[in-house]
Amino acid sequence: MASFIFRRQFTIEWGQCDPAGIAFNSRFFEMFDVNTWLLFEAALGVTAHQLGETFGIIGIPLVDARANFLKSPRFGDEVELASRVTEFRRSSFDVDHKLTVGGELAVEGGETRVWAARDRDDPEKIHGIAIPNDVIARFG
Amino acid sequence: MASFIFRRQFTIEWGQCDPAGIAFNSRFFEMFDVNTWLLFEAALGVTAHQLGETFGIIGIPLVDARANFLKSPRFGDEVELASRVTEFRRSSFDVDHKLTVGGELAVEGGETRVWAARDRDDPEKIHGIAIPNDVIARFG
Amino acid sequence: MASFIFRRQFTIEWGQCDPAGIAFNSRFFEMFDVNTWLLFEAALGVTAHQLGETFGIIGIPLVDARANFLKSPRFGDEVELASRVTEFRRSSFDVDHKLTVGGELAVEGGETRVWAARDRDDPEKIHGIAIPNDVIARFG
Amino acid sequence: MASFIFRRQFTIEWGQCDPAGIAFNSRFFEMFDVNTWLLFEAALGVTAHQLGETFGIIGIPLVDARANFLKSPRFGDEVELASRVTEFRRSSFDVDHKLTVGGELAVEGGETRVWAARDRDDPEKIHGIAIPNDVIARFG
Repeated sequence: MASFIFRRQFTIEWGQCDPAGIAFNSRFFEMFDVNTWLLFEAALGVTAHQLGETFGIIGIPLVDARANFLKSPRFGDEVELASRVTEFRRSSFDVDHKLTVGGELAVEGGETRVWAARDRDDPEKIHGIAIPNDVIARFG
Repeated sequence: MASFIFRRQFTIEWGQCDPAGIAFNSRFFEMFDVNTWLLFEAALGVTAHQLGETFGIIGIPLVDARANFLKSPRFGDEVELASRVTEFRRSSFDVDHKLTVGGELAVEGGETRVWAARDRDDPEKIHGIAIPNDVIARFG
Repeated sequence: MASFIFRRQFTIEWGQCDPAGIAFNSRFFEMFDVNTWLLFEAALGVTAHQLGETFGIIGIPLVDARANFLKSPRFGDEVELASRVTEFRRSSFDVDHKLTVGGELAVEGGETRVWAARDRDDPEKIHGIAIPNDVIARFG
Repeated sequence: MASFIFRRQFTIEWGQCDPAGIAFNSRFFEMFDVNTWLLFEAALGVTAHQLGETFGIIGIPLVDARANFLKSPRFGDEVELASRVTEFRRSSFDVDHKLTVGGELAVEGGETRVWAARDRDDPEKIHGIAIPNDVIARFG
């Protein structure tokens, strides 16, 4: 498991909450996405915007996402989202997201993403390519 | 005022509503955007997807949006959104959106959009071009 | 596995898509949520709005959500989302969502939800209660 | 015009952008809403969560929203959103939002909101009540 953890503190917004007064489930997947970009930015030292250009990829598309809701953050709650890569494989990797409220685990999320490039012969096609060792090394 | 009106009926979703139990304001601007695409699709007989290619434009970017909230639709409310172009100018136009609940006006919206193409000399730049007369004619 | 399937056809919206031109991942969880409400509405013959009141519950809160992205629907794609309950347990159940584009599976989702009521002694607390047999029977 | 200005810096997210690579219009209305809550929190010294309880109101519902898009912020752009109340009337007020990218005005927004309470005789009804002078004074 990579030891590099990215942590972000923020406050649950009114517009993120549903009639039950809690953050609506799809909003957590937005939060996870933001944190993954920021995790890579922090670990690799390039902005999310420059990620593709720097490493010759089109991005890190999501192939699987999941969340487990233990406790529902409410409007105004100050939360922390801590994210880390839990496994690098040849061309894909897993990101784990832990959202806490007052130090207590509220939502646990996971993403599987691909280190993806355009096919040289058919630019319409996208496929995973080997994640460089020095990229993996940056995550400790 | 163009006489062609596009009407769409739909139901307010749980995830569109906020802790007050009413649809959150930003959601109406999503609804307006959907209706404008569908209005053009219905009037011009091409899918929104083909609009750019068919008319040599990059799209119909929004330059101004506004909404007036008279009555707040709630989760489960069946609403109708009626949209029409109220004015065509040389390269821009106004769309009016009226959202009703049970026939009663609940939200009134407006958009100003541009019939836009890339600059021939500098493709990074985008500017309005003259809206073809036969496009305008299709809106009655 | 319950045999009752709810199917909904719709078109991917511009505002649901990201800079890669494909629907952004969090949007699928919104689509799943809408379909689950409509599935229950269709099976039980009460509107989503009346679900709580009719059955003495506060709702069917989500405890787990997941999605597997096989193929990315794009702006303007006409899709179908087919949803069914795959398992009813004492007080929780699983919903399976299959989103297809032109008949081809594009996104597969899953939700685990609870049939939940307020605690009689402590109304601040919410817990799962037994799903009535006649509710389960309506799903075939 | 109230002299108290609330400023917030943030980065445009991938999931906020549309296929044109720019932040989708409805997202700016989410940003405005967040800033209005934070503006009141900063000026009044109570959290948005406590606003209703502290002042005996149900909230500050939006009756009108508008935005003028001059330049489109893109994914990864660092922006600043500066918000202030431009006019307090008896029971309603206007908020002005200026979003800048690199110091250049990109989007200008406006909201009209009501200082609202439940009707004593009919709690189903909501109406504007007089904004306390000491509230107005806190905005300079």
